This record gives sequence, structure tokens and C-alpha cells, in this order.
Amino acid sequence: DEELYQDNEIAGVVTGLAWTQVGGEILFVESSLSKGKGSLTISGQLGDVMKESAMAALSYLKFNAEALGIDHRIFQQYDLHIHVPAGAVPKDGPSAGITMFTSLASIFTQRKVKSKLAMTGEITLRGKVLPVGGIKEKILAAKRSGIKEIVLSSKNRRDIEEIEKHYLKGLTFYYVDTVDDVLKVALLKEKVKQPMTFSLTESRLQPQYNN
Amino acid sequence: DEELYQDNEIAGVVTGLAWTQVGGEILFVESSLSKGKGSLTISGQLGDVMKESAMAALSYLKFNAEALGIDHRIFQQYDLHIHVPAGAVPKDGPSAGITMFTSLASIFTQRKVKSKLAMTGEITLRGKVLPVGGIKEKILAAKRSGIKEIVLSSKNRRDIEEIEKHYLKGLTFYYVDTVDDVLKVALLKEKVKQPMTFSLTESRLQPQYNN
Amino acid sequence: DEELYQDNEIAGVVTGLAWTQVGGEILFVESSLSKGKGSLTISGQLGDVMKESAMAALSYLKFNAEALGIDHRIFQQYDLHIHVPAGAVPKDGPSAGITMFTSLASIFTQRKVKSKLAMTGEITLRGKVLPVGGIKEKILAAKRSGIKEIVLSSKNRRDIEEIEKHYLKGLTFYYVDTVDDVLKVALLKEKVKQPMTFSLTESRLQPQYNN
Amino acid sequence: DEELYQDNEIAGVVTGLAWTQVGGEILFVESSLSKGKGSLTISGQLGDVMKESAMAALSYLKFNAEALGIDHRIFQQYDLHIHVPAGAVPKDGPSAGITMFTSLASIFTQRKVKSKLAMTGEITLRGKVLPVGGIKEKILAAKRSGIKEIVLSSKNRRDIEEIEKHYLKGLTFYYVDTVDDVLKVALLKEKVKQPMTFSLTESRLQPQYNN
Amino acid sequence: DEELYQDNEIAGVVTGLAWTQVGGEILFVESSLSKGKGSLTISGQLGDVMKESAMAALSYLKFNAEALGIDHRIFQQYDLHIHVPAGAVPKDGPSAGITMFTSLASIFTQRKVKSKLAMTGEITLRGKVLPVGGIKEKILAAKRSGIKEIVLSSKNRRDIEEIEKHYLKGLTFYYVDTVDDVLKVALLKEKVKQPMTFSLTESRLQPQYNN
Amino acid sequence: DEELYQDNEIAGVVTGLAWTQVGGEILFVESSLSKGKGSLTISGQLGDVMKESAMAALSYLKFNAEALGIDHRIFQQYDLHIHVPAGAVPKDGPSAGITMFTSLASIFTQRKVKSKLAMTGEITLRGKVLPVGGIKEKILAAKRSGIKEIVLSSKNRRDIEEIEKHYLKGLTFYYVDTVDDVLKVALLKEKVKQPMTFSLTESRLQPQYNN
Ligand SMILES: [Ca+2]
Ligand SMILES: [Ca+2]
Ligand SMILES: [Ca+2]
Ligand SMILES: [Ca+2]
Ligand SMILES: [Ca+2]
Ligand SMILES: [Ca+2]
Ligand SMILES: [Ca+2]
Ligand SMILES: [Ca+2]
Ligand SMILES: [Ca+2]
Ligand SMILES: [Ca+2]
Ligand SMILES: [Ca+2]
Ligand SMILES: [Ca+2]
Repeated sequence: DEELYQDNEIAGVVTGLAWTQVGGEILFVESSLSKGKGSLTISGQLGDVMKESAMAALSYLKFNAEALGIDHRIFQQYDLHIHVPAGAVPKDGPSAGITMFTSLASIFTQRKVKSKLAMTGEITLRGKVLPVGGIKEKILAAKRSGIKEIVLSSKNRRDIEEIEKHYLKGLTFYYVDTVDDVLKVALLKEKVKQPMTFSLTESRLQPQYNN
Repeated sequence: DEELYQDNEIAGVVTGLAWTQVGGEILFVESSLSKGKGSLTISGQLGDVMKESAMAALSYLKFNAEALGIDHRIFQQYDLHIHVPAGAVPKDGPSAGITMFTSLASIFTQRKVKSKLAMTGEITLRGKVLPVGGIKEKILAAKRSGIKEIVLSSKNRRDIEEIEKHYLKGLTFYYVDTVDDVLKVALLKEKVKQPMTFSLTESRLQPQYNN
Repeated sequence: DEELYQDNEIAGVVTGLAWTQVGGEILFVESSLSKGKGSLTISGQLGDVMKESAMAALSYLKFNAEALGIDHRIFQQYDLHIHVPAGAVPKDGPSAGITMFTSLASIFTQRKVKSKLAMTGEITLRGKVLPVGGIKEKILAAKRSGIKEIVLSSKNRRDIEEIEKHYLKGLTFYYVDTVDDVLKVALLKEKVKQPMTFSLTESRLQPQYNN
Repeated sequence: DEELYQDNEIAGVVTGLAWTQVGGEILFVESSLSKGKGSLTISGQLGDVMKESAMAALSYLKFNAEALGIDHRIFQQYDLHIHVPAGAVPKDGPSAGITMFTSLASIFTQRKVKSKLAMTGEITLRGKVLPVGGIKEKILAAKRSGIKEIVLSSKNRRDIEEIEKHYLKGLTFYYVDTVDDVLKVALLKEKVKQPMTFSLTESRLQPQYNN
Repeated sequence: DEELYQDNEIAGVVTGLAWTQVGGEILFVESSLSKGKGSLTISGQLGDVMKESAMAALSYLKFNAEALGIDHRIFQQYDLHIHVPAGAVPKDGPSAGITMFTSLASIFTQRKVKSKLAMTGEITLRGKVLPVGGIKEKILAAKRSGIKEIVLSSKNRRDIEEIEKHYLKGLTFYYVDTVDDVLKVALLKEKVKQPMTFSLTESRLQPQYNN
Repeated sequence: DEELYQDNEIAGVVTGLAWTQVGGEILFVESSLSKGKGSLTISGQLGDVMKESAMAALSYLKFNAEALGIDHRIFQQYDLHIHVPAGAVPKDGPSAGITMFTSLASIFTQRKVKSKLAMTGEITLRGKVLPVGGIKEKILAAKRSGIKEIVLSSKNRRDIEEIEKHYLKGLTFYYVDTVDDVLKVALLKEKVKQPMTFSLTESRLQPQYNN
């Protein structure tokens, strides 16, 4: 798996960190958009908690669309698919939340994700980042896979401080409180080489603004 | 969790009180609105009873929309998401009913929720507030977390009176019979700093009023 | 619970009688309408039989709408929610059928329900009232809660006659065969103080009457 | 149950015969129509086989609508509800098929059903009537309940012939092969006293006939 | 069952062969069309595999509609119901696939099905006919029921050759590789006596042909 | 099964390799399109993982439609059915992913699939090809069935190298990293003999291009 995505030329692919019975693992969250009617498909044998993470990530992205320069009509006129290979491995838990959010932000903006970067952390509906478990095992797996930078909840800082120094050599850590902070680190300004072009229709009814 | 929301600058976030096998806990109900078609998403590993509480809270809010100055078209033209972190912890029971209602009232009006305030109580479909259990444990958890004011059903008054005085020091209690009373205490007149602006389309058909 | 609804100023709230392992209980059926598209939500941890009772009650109300002066467009242009607190207590069985029907009749007409009145009985799709069990326990619970009048199926008359007289003191019984008879007793002509005003759109296509 | 429907003044109510562990029983199939969008609701704690019977009966009625003088737009512009009291008693099996079909034919035509008539038999999608079991017990229950005429599949004739004569006294039997034959016996030409008036809109697009 | 359909005057009824624990059986697949919106109902207590057979048969028929002279708008403007009596007998397996396909071809074209003909074989999505099991028992059941001609996959030829000759007397076998071959044998050119007349609306948008 | 599809004249049929308890097997993925509204049907007793593979394959095809010359309106105006015979055999796992993708590419372009070619490999949402298990058994089954060329993930190269040479005689292997590479090998430029003609309506609203 480690060599699956060696560059960051594909929008919507972000490296996460998982914890399993047999140690840490890296995983990839993939997102894809295609013309449609706003449907959401989630695949990769994900459990309930992980599916709910995806939904929270999507809701926060929609709420924050304007700030990210995302045309709101894309949510209605494109179908979104989120997948986490390998397809036969059951996965669950909230710790892929910020990875999913970053994947969504990348696919909707067509901006590159920083390479050799991984992340782990729960997302709340209002964009807070909560701490998660299995930090030591995840860090070791990240290092093994050639990751250089890692994004974590600031409440996981103490878990890092408990790891022996030599294991952390060559790794840079970013401690965040919000997913806005995650994007400052992980989402580059630059678009991918062949960015998708969104074809959007006018909405039928003229909106009026009120408050 | 205690420091998750230290201010009240985000609309739709309200502190509730939960009771678990190992004592009381505070929890946060988060609500979010995004342009859509009136769908409702509920997440956070909530059980049937808690989901039904959310639906009762929403129905009462819709029934009461005019009194709160909420444009009814928002219910049809925005999608609502209610989430209760942490995402992996199963939660159930009716006692988050008034917390959910206050969260909805805040997100739909963009008004601030009073800070350092927590609440617990079941909501009925017609806006009554019913008493709930685990009061002592919940009060201790609230105090530990820096809560200063607590809203309860008036039928829980006797549960408070049975708690030793020194535990209650520094806490103010509001006993209520209806969720209208809850809002009088919990929902400030002031809007949040950057209130969401709702973009609404005319409904297509001219309404006629009759009775 | 007994003091939850001390007056009858709220439309759509009707007192029913339930039978549990530990004796009789009163319960409240609450109904609520809000602008929508004709959806039906049922909550309160109701079992299959009780949900089907609600659906039979609604179908009979729709069939009988004209006789009750209900504008048929309300069924298409408003959402209906039926709830039976307390939200965490599982409830089942057919005996709340006529209570649900009366609740619906009240919310759709905005007419008051007679106060200090309770009822128990199964409803059929064509508006018949069938007898139910647990009559003695239900009567005792009603009396304890301050109920003065009780509506029952005429086929439950013999169950009342088997109860010792002194238990029945202060109670008036109405024996009915149809839910039309139930409404004659339970639904007052007078509307509630602040009746809801229904805002209805014309249906798009001009109806033509044929037979 | 026996006295529930003593006359035949209500359209859509037909008497069927059921077989239970403790003997035969009569049951009533009730149908109701109300303005809507063509939805189908089935209630009365019916099992899968009995629900499928209802669907086969409805499909055959739609196929045969013209012959019965039913305006096809009713199927699209009215909601149909089929209920079998008592609501708490689980029921299953195919033998109510022709009873359901007769109930539907009556509610859609507003024609009276013959009184003191009961029936039992499976319906196929193309309107054949198949034999069913428990005939002796069903006949005894019918007689006990005051039924005078009974409709059966011609393939159940031998089951009747095996019953001792004196049990059959006062009963007339009709043996049928198709549900068209059932209606010839069971559905009167006369409409019920206050027949429902169907209010139908034009269909939007001009049909063109081809073959 | 054997005498259920003695002639072939009803479109959409085809005789299949089933294999059960207690020997072979004939069964009838019935199809029915009524004005609607293109919905599909499958009944007769069919298992997953048999339901999927029906869906494969329908997809192949749609793909092949033009060759059979079927107006494609029927698929959108009529509802289809497939039923396999007896309604209470659970049925499963892929061997009714070609029977279902022939039933669909007959109901959509209103052409007669050859009488005293039965068939058994799995259908694939592209119209191939796969061999099935229980051939000997099925043949005996067919003969017992007065069937004269039988359609089978050519890969079941060897199963027939293993049956003792005298059992096959009076039976003609057709070995096929595709469902197109099935129709050549089973579907007569002649329409049923009173063919259904399809009433179709124009599709709203003018199609343009491209490739 | 081996002789089911002896030529490649039918679009949408691709040979895959499966691994079962009793050894390797070839299987056929079949796809079919018919006029409709963009629905997806998956059949053949497929498990969750295999269904998710189909969905990932379809999403990647939609994303890549322009490059393959597929008119995007087909996805909205045609229904897609994917089936894997034999219908009664349960199948699961991710290894049919690239077979499904090739089947979809063929049916949507009406281009021929190379004959005597088989493939096995997981597809990710962004079109990567992941290695799968059971390679030796699958290769033996392919050879037994007359397959001459096989497409695999480049990460399965070492599994081939571990197989004794004489087993591989007469087989050519293609090692790929992406499904684009799969199509270069498997999908011929030439269309099938009687290619389907897609009849498409204009989309109602004039698109505007922005980014
Ligand atoms: Ca690894
Ligand atoms: Ca779960
Ligand atoms: Ca805590
Ligand atoms: Ca539950
Ligand atoms: Ca009580
Ligand atoms: Ca049940
Ligand atoms: Ca009885
Ligand atoms: Ca069943
Ligand atoms: Ca037989
Ligand atoms: Ca199954
Ligand atoms: Ca084989
Ligand atoms: Ca599974």
C-alpha cells in the first residue's frame, strides 16, 4: 500500500493513519466527483462511525464552501463518492474524520494535497478536531511508509511527547484545534495538473437575499 | 471534552448533561445548516430514543417558527445536520431533548447561546419539559467542567434539593415547564459574530390564507 | 405525568389509558402540524401495532375530512408528527387507536378536546371502535389522575359492570360503537385560544368532478 | 367480532374466513380511499404472504379496471389503505386473497357487498382462484357468526362434501374458478347509500392510442 | 395445479418446471401490466436468486425491445407485476429465468404462448441460457401434468439422454443456447383473443439520435 | 461455463478470474444498458465488497467519460445492470474490480473486448489497480478454459514468478498499475458488429462553464 500514491498529482487523495489489532497502518481516503444530482456514495467496508465521520466532514465543507471558493451548485449537480481501499478490509472509528475532510476540500477545489503528509483526528460538525487513540502505532507506521509530516489534534500532543525521541526523528508534527488549521497545513494553493472543470447550470429560480 | 467550546461564538452549539455507567458527563449538541432540500441528518451513534428526541425538537421548532422569527422557507431550502461528539461513543435516552431544541433554535436564528450554561430534560412534541434521571451525577459533571448555570424541568427540583448544599455552590438553577422557558434563559438576543446569511428563493405558488 | 396537561388549551393533546405490567397508566397522545409536503412522523418508541393504529386513524380522518370541515389540501401541504411521551418508554398495542384519532381530529380542526376526559379503544379503518383489555387497571389509573369522564367501546361495558361500584364513583362512562361517537363526546365545538392558521396554495390543476 | 358489521352499508368491507390454532374465525377486510398520490398502506399485522395477496389483488383490479367501470386516474390520485382488524392479532397466508379483491372492487366502485356472505380462497395475478386449507373449521365459524352464503374455489368442493350434512344446513355454497365469478356473487349492482365522489384532475399529457 | 391454465388465451402465463425435496413440480409464472410509472413488483415468496432472475429477464427484454416490436415507452408508463403461485410456497433458484423471460415477452407483446409447453433454464443478462439441475424429476412432473414439449439449455441434453427412454415417450425436447431461441419455440406470432391496448403519452422532450 | 462466450461479439462481457474453496474458476461479468433514468442494478448474489467494487468502477468510468468519448447524458438517461452468472452462486471480494470496469467501458463505448483474455485485480476509486490473492489457482483455471492473455496488478508479478514455468506456457501476462493500462490491453478500438445506438434528449438547461 505504501507506494500506492507516490505523488500528489491526483486531487482528493489524502493519507490517513489507522490503528489495527496488529499495529498501525497508513490508509488512503479517495474522493471522486461526477455529474449527477448530489448523491453521496461511501464505500470500502466502512462501519457506522466512519460513515458518520464522512457525513460530518461533508456538512462542514458545505457550511464553509464560500470561504474555500467552492460554487455551491456543485453539491447539487455532481455526485460524490468517497472510498477507502483496500475494499475488502473492514474499517471503522472516527479517526479518519480530518482525512476525509481534507480529501473533500481537495476534490471540490482541485487543489493539491501536500505530499509525504499524513493525518489522524476526529472531526466535529462545527469543525473542531478531537484527539484519537493508537498514536504511537500510527506514528511508527507513518514513518515506515516514508511520511515526513503529521497533523494531529493539539490534545494528542502529550501522546507524542510520551514516545521515545529517536522514533520521531525526521518527522514534523502539526497540532491543530480546527479543520481550518488542518487545511492551512495540508491543502496547497496550487491546483493539480489537469484540474477537473465543473459544468454547472443556472439554478432555475432567482434567489433573493434576506436575513 | 470540557474545553471543546470555550466561548459561544458558534451558533448551534449547546452543552448538555449525560449520565453514564461511570458517572456524569457533559456533551455538546452541534447543529449545522447548508443549502439543500430540507433533509435531516443525525449522527454521533445516537440510539432510537435520542433520534426521536431530535425529531420532536425539530417539529416543535417548525410549529413555533413564526414566534422565533424564522423564515419557514429555510426548512425546505436548507439541509439540517445534528451531531453529538464524540463520534464513536454510543448515546441514547430522552434527556438531550431540550439541548437539541436550543441548538436548533440557535442555528436557525443565528443567535448566541448563553455561555457556561448546561441543560438536561426531555422535550415533548408540544414543548413541555419532562424530568430526567441521573441528576446528581450530571450536576457534579457540570460543575467540574466549569458550568455556572443549569436548566432543568421543574419536576427535577426535588432531585436538586436532595443534593448536599456544598456541591451546589456556585451553580444557579432554572426550573422550567416548557421549552419556551428554556429559550428565555439560554438563547441570547444577540446574534453570533458572523451570522450565516440565508439565501432563499420565492416559493413558486402564491399562498392564499384561509382558515 | 398526571399534571402534564392540566388544561385543554393546546390542540392535538388527548389523554389515553395504558395497561402495563405494574398497573394502569394515563398517557398523552400529542399531534403537531407544520408546513411541509404531507409526511408522517411517529415517535415515542411505539411498536408496530401502535404505529398501524396511527395509520388507520389518519386514513379514517382523511376519508372523513369533509364532514369535519378539514380542507383536504392540509394533508398534502403540512407535515404531521404524532408523539407519545415519555420518549424512552416502549409502548405497543391497539388501545390508543381512538385517542390518536381524537388527537388528529383536534389538531386538524384546532378544536379543543374536553378536559378531564380519557379514552381507550381500538379503531378500525372504517371507524368502528373495538374493545380492549386491562379495563379495571386503566380505570383506577384514570381516577388517580383526576379524570372525570371515560370513553370506551360498548363491548367493554361488561368489563365496567364487573368493577366494584365504589371504584367508579365520580366517573362518567360513554360507550361508543364508532369514532364519530367518540368525537361527539370528546371534541368541543370551540377552537383553542390561538388556533393555528393554515396557509394553503391552490392545487395546480383544476379538478373536475365525476363519478 | 361477529357483530362488527351487521349491514353492508359501508363500501370496502368484506367478510373472510381464517383458520387458527384454536379453530376457524371470521375476519373483516377493510379498504379505504383518500385523496393522495397512489400510495398503498397495508396494516393489521399481516405477514409477507398476506401482503403479497393484497398486491396481487390490486394488480388484477387495475388490469380489470375498465371492465368494472373504474376510472384509471383514481389509482394515481387516491391513496389506498387495506386493514384487517383486530390490529394486534398477527395474520398470514394466502386465503384472504379473494376477500381482499372483493373489498377493493367494492371501494373503487362504491358498490355494496352482499350481506351475510363470506369467502375464502387464494387469488393469482391473472385472477384465478386457488383452493385453501382449514375448510371445515372455517365453515363452522361462518355458521356460528350468522353467515348464510360462502364463496370457495371449485377445487375446495370436495372438502365441503366431506363435511357431515347437518353442519352445512342453512348454508349456500358458490364454487368459483376466477375472481370474476366471485364478483358475480358478492358485489351487488347497487351502490352504498352515500357513495364517495371521486374528484379527479385531468392527466397533463394528451394520451395517444397505439398498439 | 396441473389444470390451472388449460389453454393459452391469457398473455403472460408460462409453465415452468421446479424441483423440490419431494420431486418435480410444474409452476406458472404470471405477469401483469397496468398503467403506472414503470414500477416492478415481484411476489410469490420468491428468494433472492429468483428475484434476480426476474430482473435479468426484464433487463434483457428492455435491451431487446425493438427486435420484439415493443414500444419502449411501455416500460416507463406501465407498472409490471410478476407473480408465481401458490403464494404461500417459498421458491428460489435460477431455473425459472427463461420462464420469466417468456412470460414478460408475452405480456409486453400480447402474443400467445404455445400450449402444453414447459421450460426450465437460467437466463444471463446477455440472453444466454445456462443448464440447471433436477432435470429427471422435472421431466416426470411435466409429463404427469400433460406437457408435450419442453425447452432446455443445450447443456442439459446429456441429462435427458441419461433418462430411460420410456419416460420420455410423447415428449419433444428443444435444446437452446439463447433466449432468442426460446422465443422461437415458445412465443406464437398470434396475439391473444382480447389483447390489451397500451395507452401511451408522448415523451416530453424531442429525442435526438447520436452515437 | 468455459464455452459460454466463445467470441467477443457482445459488448459488455468480460472474463474474470475467481478463487473458491475448491480452486480457481473463470467468471463472466455482464453489463447491459436500457433506456431509463440512470438507475443501477447489480445481481448474481454478490456480497457487499463486490457490490462496492462495481460502484467504484462506475464512479471512475463517469469521472473518465470524456477521455473515453462517452456522452455524459447516457449515465442519466439509461439504466445500467451488472450481472455475474451463475445466478445461484454467492460471490464476493474485490478482485473482480477491473473486470467490472472493463465491462462498463465496453458497454458504454460499444467497443469489443479482446478475446481469450482474462483479468483479476482490485480497482480503487481513482483508477489504481491493487494486487489480489489466489493467483496460482486462478492462472490454472484460466489456462484450463482456453485463456491466452491475462491482466494483473504489477504488484502480483512476484506471485506469477513463484509459479513453475511449465504451468505458464502459452500464457502472456500484462502487469498494470492503473485501469487506464487495463483498457489499453483489453478494449479494442473496433466496435461490436451491431453496436447499440444511444437515443439521448437534450438536457433541459443550458450549461455554463466556469471553474
Ligand atoms: Ca502496510
Ligand atoms: Ca453501529
Ligand atoms: Ca469528561
Ligand atoms: Ca430501540
Ligand atoms: Ca403515573
Ligand atoms: Ca411486530
Ligand atoms: Ca369469534
Ligand atoms: Ca416471509
Ligand atoms: Ca402437482
Ligand atoms: Ca440470499
Ligand atoms: Ca468450470
Ligand atoms: Ca458485509
